[in-house]
Amino acid sequence: MTVQTSPPSAALAETMLDMGRRARAASRELGLLTAQDRTRGLKAIAAAIRAAAPDVLRANAEDMAAARAKGLAPAMLDRLALDEKRLEGVAAGVETVAALPDPLGRELARWTPPNGLDIARIAVPLGVIGIIYESRPNVTVDAGVLCLRSGNAAILRGGSESAKSSAALANAMRGALKSEELPVDAIQLVATTNREAVGHMLGGLEGALDVIVPRGGRSLVERVQAEARVPVIGHLEGLCHTYVHAAADPKKAVDIVLNAKMRRTGVCGSTETLLIDVAVAATLLPQIAKALTDAGCELRGDGRTRAILGDITPATEADWATEYLDAILSIAVVDGLPGALAHLARWSSGHTDAIITEDTAAAETFIANVDSAIVLHNASTQFADGGEFGFGAEIGIATGRIHARGPVGAEQLTTYKYAVRGTGQVRP
Amino acid sequence: MTVQTSPPSAALAETMLDMGRRARAASRELGLLTAQDRTRGLKAIAAAIRAAAPDVLRANAEDMAAARAKGLAPAMLDRLALDEKRLEGVAAGVETVAALPDPLGRELARWTPPNGLDIARIAVPLGVIGIIYESRPNVTVDAGVLCLRSGNAAILRGGSESAKSSAALANAMRGALKSEELPVDAIQLVATTNREAVGHMLGGLEGALDVIVPRGGRSLVERVQAEARVPVIGHLEGLCHTYVHAAADPKKAVDIVLNAKMRRTGVCGSTETLLIDVAVAATLLPQIAKALTDAGCELRGDGRTRAILGDITPATEADWATEYLDAILSIAVVDGLPGALAHLARWSSGHTDAIITEDTAAAETFIANVDSAIVLHNASTQFADGGEFGFGAEIGIATGRIHARGPVGAEQLTTYKYAVRGTGQVRP
Repeated sequence: MTVQTSPPSAALAETMLDMGRRARAASRELGLLTAQDRTRGLKAIAAAIRAAAPDVLRANAEDMAAARAKGLAPAMLDRLALDEKRLEGVAAGVETVAALPDPLGRELARWTPPNGLDIARIAVPLGVIGIIYESRPNVTVDAGVLCLRSGNAAILRGGSESAKSSAALANAMRGALKSEELPVDAIQLVATTNREAVGHMLGGLEGALDVIVPRGGRSLVERVQAEARVPVIGHLEGLCHTYVHAAADPKKAVDIVLNAKMRRTGVCGSTETLLIDVAVAATLLPQIAKALTDAGCELRGDGRTRAILGDITPATEADWATEYLDAILSIAVVDGLPGALAHLARWSSGHTDAIITEDTAAAETFIANVDSAIVLHNASTQFADGGEFGFGAEIGIATGRIHARGPVGAEQLTTYKYAVRGTGQVRP
Repeated sequence: MTVQTSPPSAALAETMLDMGRRARAASRELGLLTAQDRTRGLKAIAAAIRAAAPDVLRANAEDMAAARAKGLAPAMLDRLALDEKRLEGVAAGVETVAALPDPLGRELARWTPPNGLDIARIAVPLGVIGIIYESRPNVTVDAGVLCLRSGNAAILRGGSESAKSSAALANAMRGALKSEELPVDAIQLVATTNREAVGHMLGGLEGALDVIVPRGGRSLVERVQAEARVPVIGHLEGLCHTYVHAAADPKKAVDIVLNAKMRRTGVCGSTETLLIDVAVAATLLPQIAKALTDAGCELRGDGRTRAILGDITPATEADWATEYLDAILSIAVVDGLPGALAHLARWSSGHTDAIITEDTAAAETFIANVDSAIVLHNASTQFADGGEFGFGAEIGIATGRIHARGPVGAEQLTTYKYAVRGTGQVRP
């Protein structure tokens, strides 16, 4: 058996290392291009995606047929599906990224300490970024173009379900780079669906990868965290909460909770748990619950919730810890702001949490005390999105604490270096 | 044997987990203190270190005696040694950190996208930071107070050689926190010299550690990179270069190279390799070499260097890859700026590299092309230091690419969150 499996494994290893070397070479070139060069490449990519629409849609139809045959869930099929309108949205997104201010070369700080040195902190690319994601083919484009905008080379590894769609999109992007005489290997897609390829990426490709961005479900992120030998900009789950405070405006509360849960239930910014203040639960919870159940949402509640709403499923500890990504909402009645903060300190995944209140002091206490990447006042948690933040696109929402938190756009894919200009200084 | 070793290991595990829990609790309190509270704590720590000087110096004398008995190298003994003057320097350093602007709560950016949300990016602490370091006892203070300035709880693990000195310093710091009614567990020192304690820290203490900062030699950093299950702000070696360009001012070249190599040979910012342009090597290299050998530096050269300097030790590939941390310098004659850039692309560790030239265009090309945390023009690489950068102190010089590069001071120990204020927005 060793004799049979060893050659393909060795070949895969060499293929992956070769991708790493090409990416490193492309990254050296990329960082030295002008912002105009990168913008030109992005505009060419948008045009190439439009021109490749028939190829992409044909490839997507094949992916969809295979996915249906495998019995993929409707929510997964919806993530995978492309049509002319969605593809035009992808191309328009690239143009948005092309129009973003270039994040490289920004002077982040500049000062002169007593030694007389002129010290400048300058934004530079991270280098080579490995992105490991799941079914959505549009991530292939979002990730590729955000890396290009920020001068990074990308090695993309999408899910097997979207393999053909992603290949068609990557081909279009690489063709655009080639025709513009920009480094083609700035965007590379791992062609094989062999899961060993992910293992090679997590090993760092002999130093070629500077950072890995996983975008996907818990099992992927856990594998990455356990195995990665390179830094990770992590995207864990979005166990988001909306807290309806005693001083909430009732209409805002109903509208925002309904939107936060039901606008799209499969996104990481959807609210999974509603916290409602005991002072208003009896009057407000029935209205909120009616809006949700009318929209098809299943409710699960703690004892006090069930005392108000009647016969709904009891919420257990497992519910407070579950990212449903579905039309299900757990509800807890809490004792004022301290009760809400205690629940969040225990259960929030640090992604996005919101308070609904007309009491500004309470809102500011909530904002100061909740240690999540995004803390909202009187707005839907579904605004946790790079596009809504004005980033043009996003690779995901980072839930780790280092380097970047919240939406990861082009600016978050940069680091910095110090340019220090002296006049002959030696250190005493 | 299992019966004998298992109880102490289990006890150590519980001790470490308890430190993690205490640190997490302290971190929650710390982030909500005012800047004035943190400043008050820092001033109290400076006073406490001065008051504890007799205890600290007695403990240090015991460490030194044990280290001499173990036959520690003179350079290591020098790093370990404290005297009244050095200790006063440590206390004064704490006062410098106390006088720094508080890095928390800074509004890093604020904007309103078309959805009307008021989005602010606000600096917040990283959380709980594990710092693993080696012999210098002053790191115990530098790391502890930089974490306090930035609202982070610190779990410090120093080297066994400095165990008693570090314990006396940590006691003084914790006493100051206690007397000021600030969270004492904001600064904790791992009391045991058992190396298993490091393993527990690398495992993350069941989620209590947010980030690990290793500060030490290659073997420590390699262990951390291989085993860490939490993000690492890495401090790899400083294989620093000084490049003397064809248009270098001869006096600046001699003065800067001598300082970059010989001011202190044991620091990570010391130059290990001199690159000199072939156009000026014949005239300038003998002057530079004389200054260095007069100061007691051993020279090793490539073929062209030896053709000029005569009978010095040949430099091999191993020399280009070696951080000597000693009075040894490898020298390569290079063909212009492209030759220097090629050498750096292959051998620089990405820490600090310098060019000496009066040609501003060449200097700017060097600054743009050299991908190191610190790139200097006409200054000594020994300026790679948080104090010289105006950071008051530093935990080390980061050589990784994510989160922070270069000197890591209080500002680099922060992250951010988004405070998003709405007026009832729901997402369409």
